[in-house]
Amino acid sequence: MTLKLFELVGTDEQRPFSPFCWRTRMALAHKGLSAQSIPWCFTEKQAIAPHQSEKVPVLLDGETSVADSWAIANYLEDTYPDRPSLFGGEGGRAICRMMNWWGDIAVVGGMFPLIVADIPSHLKPVDAAYFRKTREARLGKPLEQAAAERDKSVESFRKGLEPMRLTLKTQDYLGGDAPNYADYIVFGGFQWARVVSPFKLLAEADPVYAWRERLLDTFDGMARKSPGFPV
Amino acid sequence: MTLKLFELVGTDEQRPFSPFCWRTRMALAHKGLSAQSIPWCFTEKQAIAPHQSEKVPVLLDGETSVADSWAIANYLEDTYPDRPSLFGGEGGRAICRMMNWWGDIAVVGGMFPLIVADIPSHLKPVDAAYFRKTREARLGKPLEQAAAERDKSVESFRKGLEPMRLTLKTQDYLGGDAPNYADYIVFGGFQWARVVSPFKLLAEADPVYAWRERLLDTFDGMARKSPGFPV
Repeated sequence: MTLKLFELVGTDEQRPFSPFCWRTRMALAHKGLSAQSIPWCFTEKQAIAPHQSEKVPVLLDGETSVADSWAIANYLEDTYPDRPSLFGGEGGRAICRMMNWWGDIAVVGGMFPLIVADIPSHLKPVDAAYFRKTREARLGKPLEQAAAERDKSVESFRKGLEPMRLTLKTQDYLGGDAPNYADYIVFGGFQWARVVSPFKLLAEADPVYAWRERLLDTFDGMARKSPGFPV
Repeated sequence: MTLKLFELVGTDEQRPFSPFCWRTRMALAHKGLSAQSIPWCFTEKQAIAPHQSEKVPVLLDGETSVADSWAIANYLEDTYPDRPSLFGGEGGRAICRMMNWWGDIAVVGGMFPLIVADIPSHLKPVDAAYFRKTREARLGKPLEQAAAERDKSVESFRKGLEPMRLTLKTQDYLGGDAPNYADYIVFGGFQWARVVSPFKLLAEADPVYAWRERLLDTFDGMARKSPGFPV
Protein backbone atom coordinates (compact mmCIF):
# COMPACT_ATOMS: atom_id res chain seq x y z
CA MET A 1 0.00 0.00 0.00
CA THR A 2 1.52 3.30 -1.07
CA LEU A 3 -0.49 6.41 -0.48
CA LYS A 4 0.36 9.54 -2.42
CA LEU A 5 -0.75 13.07 -1.68
CA PHE A 6 -0.77 16.05 -4.01
CA GLU A 7 0.24 18.95 -1.77
CA LEU A 8 0.45 22.66 -2.46
CA VAL A 9 3.95 24.14 -2.48
CA GLY A 10 5.67 27.23 -3.84
CA THR A 11 9.32 27.54 -4.83
CA ASP A 12 10.36 25.30 -1.94
CA GLU A 13 9.04 21.77 -2.38
CA GLN A 14 9.89 21.02 1.24
CA ARG A 15 7.52 23.72 2.49
CA PRO A 16 3.96 22.54 1.93
CA PHE A 17 1.31 25.06 2.79
CA SER A 18 -2.49 25.10 2.20
CA PRO A 19 -4.70 24.76 5.27
CA PHE A 20 -6.60 21.96 3.58
CA CYS A 21 -3.51 19.87 2.77
CA TRP A 22 -2.42 20.23 6.39
CA ARG A 23 -5.77 18.92 7.57
CA THR A 24 -5.07 15.83 5.48
CA ARG A 25 -1.45 15.53 6.65
CA MET A 26 -2.60 15.54 10.27
CA ALA A 27 -5.44 13.09 9.51
CA LEU A 28 -3.00 10.67 7.86
CA ALA A 29 -0.66 10.87 10.84
CA HIS A 30 -3.61 10.31 13.22
CA LYS A 31 -4.38 7.11 11.30
CA GLY A 32 -0.73 6.10 11.45
CA LEU A 33 -0.48 6.30 7.68
CA SER A 34 2.24 7.88 5.63
CA ALA A 35 1.87 9.24 2.13
CA GLN A 36 4.42 10.09 -0.50
CA SER A 37 4.17 13.81 -1.20
CA ILE A 38 3.64 14.98 -4.77
CA PRO A 39 4.49 18.69 -4.82
CA TRP A 40 1.91 20.73 -6.74
CA CYS A 41 1.72 24.41 -7.66
CA PHE A 42 -1.38 26.57 -8.17
CA THR A 43 -1.24 26.65 -11.98
CA GLU A 44 -0.55 22.93 -12.48
CA LYS A 45 -4.22 22.18 -13.06
CA GLN A 46 -3.44 19.50 -15.65
CA ALA A 47 -1.59 17.33 -13.16
CA ILE A 48 -4.72 16.74 -11.09
CA ALA A 49 -7.34 16.98 -13.84
CA PRO A 50 -7.38 13.15 -14.21
CA HIS A 51 -8.59 13.02 -10.62
CA GLN A 52 -11.59 15.27 -11.29
CA SER A 53 -10.25 18.10 -9.22
CA GLU A 54 -8.88 21.58 -9.72
CA LYS A 55 -7.60 21.89 -6.18
CA VAL A 56 -5.52 19.99 -3.68
CA PRO A 57 -5.36 17.96 -1.54
CA VAL A 58 -5.87 14.95 -3.77
CA LEU A 59 -5.10 11.57 -2.18
CA LEU A 60 -4.15 8.56 -4.27
CA ASP A 61 -4.67 5.18 -2.65
CA GLY A 62 -3.85 2.51 -5.20
CA GLU A 63 -6.41 2.90 -7.98
CA THR A 64 -8.58 5.22 -5.91
CA SER A 65 -8.26 9.00 -5.95
CA VAL A 66 -10.07 11.28 -3.51
CA ALA A 67 -10.19 15.08 -3.73
CA ASP A 68 -11.18 17.59 -1.02
CA SER A 69 -9.95 17.43 2.56
CA TRP A 70 -13.35 16.61 4.04
CA ALA A 71 -13.94 13.79 1.56
CA ILE A 72 -10.43 12.48 2.29
CA ALA A 73 -11.06 12.47 6.04
CA ASN A 74 -14.23 10.46 5.51
CA TYR A 75 -12.46 8.13 3.09
CA LEU A 76 -9.70 7.46 5.60
CA GLU A 77 -12.19 6.86 8.40
CA ASP A 78 -14.20 4.40 6.30
CA THR A 79 -11.27 2.66 4.61
CA TYR A 80 -9.11 2.28 7.70
CA PRO A 81 -11.68 1.69 10.46
CA ASP A 82 -9.32 -0.35 12.62
CA ARG A 83 -6.92 2.55 13.03
CA PRO A 84 -7.55 5.41 15.51
CA SER A 85 -10.82 7.15 14.75
CA LEU A 86 -10.76 10.68 13.37
CA PHE A 87 -14.26 11.45 14.64
CA GLY A 88 -14.85 9.28 17.70
CA GLY A 89 -18.07 7.80 16.38
CA GLU A 90 -20.84 8.71 13.95
CA GLY A 91 -22.11 11.56 16.14
CA GLY A 92 -18.67 13.12 16.04
CA ARG A 93 -18.48 12.76 12.27
CA ALA A 94 -21.86 14.42 11.76
CA ILE A 95 -21.09 17.33 14.08
CA CYS A 96 -17.63 17.71 12.51
CA ARG A 97 -19.34 18.57 9.23
CA MET A 98 -20.33 21.92 10.72
CA MET A 99 -16.98 22.29 12.47
CA ASN A 100 -15.40 21.97 9.03
CA TRP A 101 -17.48 24.87 7.72
CA TRP A 102 -16.77 26.91 10.83
CA GLY A 103 -13.08 26.25 10.27
CA ASP A 104 -13.36 27.32 6.64
CA ILE A 105 -15.18 30.55 7.48
CA ALA A 106 -13.97 31.73 10.89
CA VAL A 107 -10.45 30.31 10.84
CA VAL A 108 -9.20 30.04 7.24
CA GLY A 109 -11.43 32.84 5.98
CA GLY A 110 -10.69 34.94 9.04
CA MET A 111 -6.91 34.72 8.73
CA PHE A 112 -6.87 34.96 4.94
CA PRO A 113 -6.71 38.78 4.71
CA LEU A 114 -4.15 38.86 7.54
CA ILE A 115 -1.54 36.68 5.83
CA VAL A 116 -2.41 36.82 2.14
CA ALA A 117 0.12 39.52 1.25
CA ASP A 118 2.95 37.31 2.52
CA ILE A 119 2.17 34.44 0.18
CA PRO A 120 3.33 35.60 -3.30
CA SER A 121 6.99 35.79 -2.27
CA HIS A 122 6.88 32.01 -1.69
CA LEU A 123 5.60 31.31 -5.20
CA LYS A 124 7.08 30.94 -8.66
CA PRO A 125 6.36 33.99 -10.85
CA VAL A 126 3.57 32.31 -12.83
CA ASP A 127 1.85 31.14 -9.64
CA ALA A 128 2.38 34.47 -7.90
CA ALA A 129 0.63 36.28 -10.77
CA TYR A 130 -2.26 33.78 -10.69
CA PHE A 131 -2.52 34.05 -6.94
CA ARG A 132 -2.52 37.84 -6.87
CA LYS A 133 -5.15 38.12 -9.56
CA THR A 134 -7.58 35.59 -8.07
CA ARG A 135 -7.10 36.64 -4.45
CA GLU A 136 -7.39 40.37 -5.07
CA ALA A 137 -10.68 39.66 -6.85
CA ARG A 138 -11.83 37.71 -3.79
CA LEU A 139 -10.70 40.41 -1.36
CA GLY A 140 -11.92 43.32 -3.44
CA LYS A 141 -8.68 45.15 -2.67
CA PRO A 142 -4.91 44.91 -3.28
CA LEU A 143 -3.10 42.36 -1.09
CA GLU A 144 -0.96 45.13 0.36
CA GLN A 145 -4.03 47.05 1.51
CA ALA A 146 -5.29 43.99 3.39
CA ALA A 147 -1.88 43.71 5.04
CA ALA A 148 -1.84 47.38 5.99
CA GLU A 149 -5.10 46.92 7.91
CA ARG A 150 -4.10 43.74 9.69
CA ASP A 151 -2.94 45.11 13.02
CA LYS A 152 -6.50 46.26 13.49
CA SER A 153 -8.40 43.49 11.70
CA VAL A 154 -6.64 40.77 13.69
CA GLU A 155 -8.87 41.75 16.62
CA SER A 156 -12.05 40.57 14.92
CA PHE A 157 -10.29 37.36 13.86
CA ARG A 158 -9.34 36.68 17.48
CA LYS A 159 -12.84 37.49 18.67
CA GLY A 160 -14.23 34.98 16.18
CA LEU A 161 -12.29 32.22 17.95
CA GLU A 162 -14.21 32.76 21.19
CA PRO A 163 -16.27 29.52 21.01
CA MET A 164 -13.02 27.58 20.68
CA ARG A 165 -11.27 29.59 23.41
CA LEU A 166 -14.07 28.90 25.90
CA THR A 167 -14.02 25.21 25.01
CA LEU A 168 -10.31 25.00 25.73
CA LYS A 169 -10.93 26.15 29.28
CA THR A 170 -12.37 22.75 30.16
CA GLN A 171 -10.65 20.38 27.73
CA ASP A 172 -7.21 20.29 26.10
CA TYR A 173 -8.47 19.64 22.58
CA LEU A 174 -11.65 20.19 20.58
CA GLY A 175 -11.73 16.38 20.38
CA GLY A 176 -11.54 16.07 24.19
CA ASP A 177 -8.49 14.70 26.04
CA ALA A 178 -6.70 13.99 22.77
CA PRO A 179 -6.87 15.69 19.36
CA ASN A 180 -9.16 14.43 16.63
CA TYR A 181 -10.24 15.73 13.24
CA ALA A 182 -12.03 18.74 14.79
CA ASP A 183 -8.61 19.94 15.94
CA TYR A 184 -6.96 19.29 12.58
CA ILE A 185 -9.66 21.33 10.83
CA VAL A 186 -8.62 24.39 12.80
CA PHE A 187 -4.93 23.61 13.09
CA GLY A 188 -4.59 23.31 9.31
CA GLY A 189 -5.31 27.01 9.12
CA PHE A 190 -2.75 27.94 11.74
CA GLN A 191 -0.08 25.78 10.15
CA TRP A 192 -0.78 27.40 6.76
CA ALA A 193 -0.23 30.80 8.36
CA ARG A 194 2.93 29.64 10.14
CA VAL A 195 4.48 28.39 6.91
CA VAL A 196 3.91 31.54 4.88
CA SER A 197 3.72 34.52 7.24
CA PRO A 198 5.60 36.01 10.20
CA PHE A 199 2.42 37.80 11.34
CA LYS A 200 1.42 37.07 14.95
CA LEU A 201 -2.14 35.77 14.76
CA LEU A 202 -2.47 34.97 18.46
CA ALA A 203 -1.44 36.61 21.73
CA GLU A 204 0.75 34.37 23.87
CA ALA A 205 -1.72 34.46 26.77
CA ASP A 206 -4.51 33.12 24.56
CA PRO A 207 -5.60 29.52 25.38
CA VAL A 208 -5.71 29.00 21.62
CA TYR A 209 -1.98 29.77 21.51
CA ALA A 210 -1.27 27.01 24.05
CA TRP A 211 -3.52 24.64 22.08
CA ARG A 212 -1.58 25.42 18.89
CA GLU A 213 1.67 24.64 20.73
CA ARG A 214 0.25 21.24 21.69
CA LEU A 215 -0.72 20.54 18.08
CA LEU A 216 2.71 21.60 16.85
CA ASP A 217 4.15 18.95 19.19
CA THR A 218 1.72 16.20 18.14
CA PHE A 219 2.98 13.23 16.11
CA ASP A 220 6.52 13.75 17.31
CA GLY A 221 6.45 17.42 16.34
CA MET A 222 5.55 16.76 12.70
CA ALA A 223 4.09 20.19 12.04
CA ARG A 224 6.76 22.05 14.00
CA LYS A 225 9.52 20.31 12.04
CA SER A 226 8.04 21.55 8.76
CA PRO A 227 9.66 24.85 7.72
CA GLY A 228 7.85 27.92 8.99
CA PHE A 229 8.09 31.19 10.87
CA PRO A 230 8.25 31.41 14.68
CA VAL A 231 4.73 31.77 16.09
CA MET B 1 -38.71 7.78 38.84
CA THR B 2 -40.07 11.31 38.71
CA LEU B 3 -37.97 13.95 37.09
CA LYS B 4 -38.69 17.60 37.80
CA LEU B 5 -37.45 20.59 35.86
CA PHE B 6 -37.31 24.21 36.97
CA GLU B 7 -38.25 26.16 33.85
CA LEU B 8 -38.31 29.89 33.19
CA VAL B 9 -41.75 31.40 32.67
CA GLY B 10 -43.37 34.83 32.84
CA THR B 11 -46.99 35.61 33.61
CA ASP B 12 -48.14 32.52 31.67
CA GLU B 13 -46.94 29.33 33.34
CA GLN B 14 -47.83 27.38 30.20
CA ARG B 15 -45.38 29.38 28.11
CA PRO B 16 -41.84 28.35 29.09
CA PHE B 17 -39.09 30.29 27.41
CA SER B 18 -35.31 30.41 27.97
CA PRO B 19 -33.13 28.94 25.24
CA PHE B 20 -31.33 26.84 27.84
CA CYS B 21 -34.48 25.30 29.29
CA TRP B 22 -35.57 24.38 25.78
CA ARG B 23 -32.28 22.63 25.15
CA THR B 24 -33.09 20.51 28.20
CA ARG B 25 -36.72 19.94 27.18
CA MET B 26 -35.57 18.64 23.81
CA ALA B 27 -32.85 16.51 25.40
CA LEU B 28 -35.34 14.92 27.78
CA ALA B 29 -37.69 14.13 24.90
CA HIS B 30 -34.79 12.66 22.90
CA LYS B 31 -34.12 10.32 25.82
CA GLY B 32 -37.81 9.45 26.01
CA LEU B 33 -38.01 10.99 29.47
CA SER B 34 -40.67 13.28 30.83
CA ALA B 35 -40.24 15.77 33.62
CA GLN B 36 -42.75 17.57 35.76
CA SER B 37 -42.36 21.30 35.10
CA ILE B 38 -41.76 23.64 38.02
CA PRO B 39 -42.50 27.15 36.76
CA TRP B 40 -39.83 29.63 37.86
CA CYS B 41 -39.49 33.40 37.43
CA PHE B 42 -36.32 35.48 37.17
CA THR B 43 -36.42 36.89 40.69
CA GLU B 44 -37.26 33.63 42.47
CA LYS B 45 -33.62 32.99 43.33
CA GLN B 46 -34.47 31.44 46.68
CA ALA B 47 -36.42 28.59 45.10
CA ILE B 48 -33.32 27.21 43.40
CA ALA B 49 -30.68 28.29 45.91
CA PRO B 50 -30.77 24.85 47.61
CA HIS B 51 -29.58 23.41 44.29
CA GLN B 52 -26.49 25.65 44.16
CA SER B 53 -27.75 27.62 41.21
CA GLU B 54 -29.00 31.11 40.44
CA LYS B 55 -30.29 30.18 37.02
CA VAL B 56 -32.45 27.61 35.31
CA PRO B 57 -32.68 24.95 34.04
CA VAL B 58 -32.27 22.91 37.18
CA LEU B 59 -33.16 19.22 36.88
CA LEU B 60 -34.21 17.18 39.89
CA ASP B 61 -33.82 13.41 39.59
CA GLY B 62 -34.71 11.86 42.92
CA GLU B 63 -32.13 13.11 45.39
CA THR B 64 -29.90 14.48 42.65
CA SER B 65 -30.08 18.03 41.34
CA VAL B 66 -28.21 19.23 38.27
CA ALA B 67 -27.96 22.86 37.13
CA ASP B 68 -26.88 24.22 33.72
CA SER B 69 -28.13 22.84 30.40
CA TRP B 70 -24.75 21.43 29.32
CA ALA B 71 -24.28 19.66 32.66
CA ILE B 72 -27.83 18.30 32.42
CA ALA B 73 -27.22 16.93 28.91
CA ASN B 74 -24.12 15.14 30.15
CA TYR B 75 -25.96 13.88 33.22
CA LEU B 76 -28.77 12.46 31.09
CA GLU B 77 -26.31 10.82 28.69
CA ASP B 78 -24.38 9.20 31.54
CA THR B 79 -27.35 8.27 33.72
CA TYR B 80 -29.55 6.90 30.95
CA PRO B 81 -27.02 5.28 28.59
CA ASP B 82 -29.47 2.68 27.26
CA ARG B 83 -31.76 5.35 25.85
CA PRO B 84 -31.05 7.14 22.52
CA SER B 85 -27.70 8.90 22.65
CA LEU B 86 -27.63 12.69 22.68
CA PHE B 87 -24.12 12.84 21.23
CA GLY B 88 -23.60 9.69 19.15
CA GLY B 89 -20.43 8.68 20.94
CA GLU B 90 -17.62 10.29 22.90
CA GLY B 91 -16.26 12.14 19.87
CA GLY B 92 -19.63 13.76 19.38
CA ARG B 93 -19.82 14.75 23.03
CA ALA B 94 -16.38 16.36 22.95
CA ILE B 95 -17.06 18.29 19.76
CA CYS B 96 -20.48 19.33 21.04
CA ARG B 97 -18.72 21.22 23.83
CA MET B 98 -17.62 23.80 21.26
CA MET B 99 -20.97 23.66 19.47
CA ASN B 100 -22.54 24.62 22.79
CA TRP B 101 -20.35 27.71 23.03
CA TRP B 102 -21.00 28.55 19.38
CA GLY B 103 -24.71 28.26 20.11
CA ASP B 104 -24.37 30.54 23.13
CA ILE B 105 -22.44 33.19 21.23
CA ALA B 106 -23.62 33.14 17.62
CA VAL B 107 -27.20 31.95 18.13
CA VAL B 108 -28.43 33.00 21.58
CA GLY B 109 -26.10 36.00 21.78
CA GLY B 110 -26.78 36.91 18.16
CA MET B 111 -30.56 36.94 18.50
CA PHE B 112 -30.58 38.50 21.98
CA PRO B 113 -30.59 42.17 20.85
CA LEU B 114 -33.16 41.35 18.16
CA ILE B 115 -35.84 40.00 20.50
CA VAL B 116 -34.95 41.38 23.91
CA ALA B 117 -37.38 44.32 23.78
CA ASP B 118 -40.29 41.92 23.33
CA ILE B 119 -39.61 40.03 26.54
CA PRO B 120 -40.71 42.38 29.39
CA SER B 121 -44.38 42.32 28.31
CA HIS B 122 -44.40 38.58 29.11
CA LEU B 123 -43.13 39.12 32.66
CA LYS B 124 -44.61 40.04 36.02
CA PRO B 125 -43.76 43.64 37.00
CA VAL B 126 -41.03 42.66 39.47
CA ASP B 127 -39.37 40.38 36.91
CA ALA B 128 -39.78 42.91 34.10
CA ALA B 129 -37.95 45.54 36.16
CA TYR B 130 -35.16 43.08 36.99
CA PHE B 131 -34.90 41.99 33.38
CA ARG B 132 -34.76 45.52 31.97
CA LYS B 133 -32.11 46.62 34.43
CA THR B 134 -29.79 43.64 33.96
CA ARG B 135 -30.22 43.38 30.18
CA GLU B 136 -29.80 47.06 29.47
CA ALA B 137 -26.54 46.89 31.41
CA ARG B 138 -25.46 43.96 29.23
CA LEU B 139 -26.51 45.67 26.00
CA GLY B 140 -25.18 49.07 26.93
CA LYS B 141 -28.36 50.66 25.55
CA PRO B 142 -32.12 50.78 26.16
CA LEU B 143 -34.03 47.69 25.00
CA GLU B 144 -36.06 49.82 22.65
CA GLN B 145 -32.95 51.12 20.93
CA ALA B 146 -31.81 47.55 20.25
CA ALA B 147 -35.23 46.83 18.78
CA ALA B 148 -35.14 49.94 16.59
CA GLU B 149 -31.91 48.70 14.99
CA ARG B 150 -33.02 45.14 14.43
CA ASP B 151 -34.15 45.29 10.83
CA LYS B 152 -30.55 46.07 10.01
CA SER B 153 -28.75 44.05 12.68
CA VAL B 154 -30.63 40.86 11.75
CA GLU B 155 -28.39 40.66 8.68
CA SER B 156 -25.24 40.05 10.71
CA PHE B 157 -27.11 37.48 12.82
CA ARG B 158 -28.11 35.61 9.66
CA LYS B 159 -24.58 35.82 8.29
CA GLY B 160 -23.28 34.30 11.51
CA LEU B 161 -25.34 31.17 10.82
CA GLU B 162 -23.41 30.45 7.60
CA PRO B 163 -21.47 27.42 8.93
CA MET B 164 -24.78 25.84 9.89
CA ARG B 165 -26.47 26.82 6.62
CA LEU B 166 -23.72 25.19 4.55
CA THR B 167 -23.89 22.05 6.70
CA LEU B 168 -27.62 21.73 6.07
CA LYS B 169 -26.98 21.54 2.33
CA THR B 170 -25.68 18.00 2.73
CA GLN B 171 -27.46 16.70 5.83
CA ASP B 172 -30.88 17.31 7.36
CA TYR B 173 -29.63 17.90 10.88
CA LEU B 174 -26.43 19.00 12.58
CA GLY B 175 -26.48 15.52 14.11
CA GLY B 176 -26.71 13.88 10.65
CA ASP B 177 -29.81 12.05 9.40
CA ALA B 178 -31.61 12.63 12.70
CA PRO B 179 -31.36 15.39 15.29
CA ASN B 180 -29.10 15.12 18.28
CA TYR B 181 -27.96 17.49 21.01
CA ALA B 182 -26.08 19.68 18.52
CA ASP B 183 -29.45 20.51 17.00
CA TYR B 184 -31.10 21.15 20.34
CA ILE B 185 -28.33 23.59 21.29
CA VAL B 186 -29.26 25.80 18.36
CA PHE B 187 -32.97 25.09 18.34
CA GLY B 188 -33.30 26.16 21.97
CA GLY B 189 -32.45 29.67 20.84
CA PHE B 190 -34.99 29.69 18.04
CA GLN B 191 -37.72 28.34 20.28
CA TRP B 192 -36.96 31.01 22.89
CA ALA B 193 -37.38 33.64 20.18
CA ARG B 194 -40.59 32.06 18.89
CA VAL B 195 -42.17 32.06 22.36
CA VAL B 196 -41.48 35.71 23.15
CA SER B 197 -41.20 37.66 19.89
CA PRO B 198 -43.02 38.08 16.57
CA PHE B 199 -39.80 39.26 14.91
CA LYS B 200 -38.83 37.25 11.81
CA LEU B 201 -35.32 35.97 12.46
CA LEU B 202 -35.05 33.92 9.27
CA ALA B 203 -36.02 34.32 5.64
CA GLU B 204 -38.31 31.55 4.40
CA ALA B 205 -35.84 30.52 1.69
CA ASP B 206 -33.09 29.94 4.25
CA PRO B 207 -32.15 26.26 4.76
CA VAL B 208 -32.03 27.09 8.46
CA TYR B 209 -35.74 27.99 8.26
CA ALA B 210 -36.56 24.53 6.85
CA TRP B 211 -34.39 22.93 9.53
CA ARG B 212 -36.28 24.85 12.24
CA GLU B 213 -39.56 23.59 10.77
CA ARG B 214 -38.28 20.02 11.09
CA LEU B 215 -37.31 20.61 14.71
CA LEU B 216 -40.70 22.16 15.48
CA ASP B 217 -42.24 18.91 14.20
CA THR B 218 -39.92 16.63 16.16
CA PHE B 219 -41.27 14.62 19.12
CA ASP B 220 -44.81 14.80 17.78
CA GLY B 221 -44.59 18.58 17.39
CA MET B 222 -43.70 19.19 21.03
CA ALA B 223 -42.10 22.61 20.45
CA ARG B 224 -44.73 23.74 17.93
CA LYS B 225 -47.53 22.90 20.36
CA SER B 226 -45.99 25.15 22.99
CA PRO B 227 -47.47 28.68 22.80
CA GLY B 228 -45.56 31.05 20.55
CA PHE B 229 -45.70 33.44 17.63
CA PRO B 230 -45.86 32.30 13.99
CA VAL B 231 -42.34 32.03 12.54
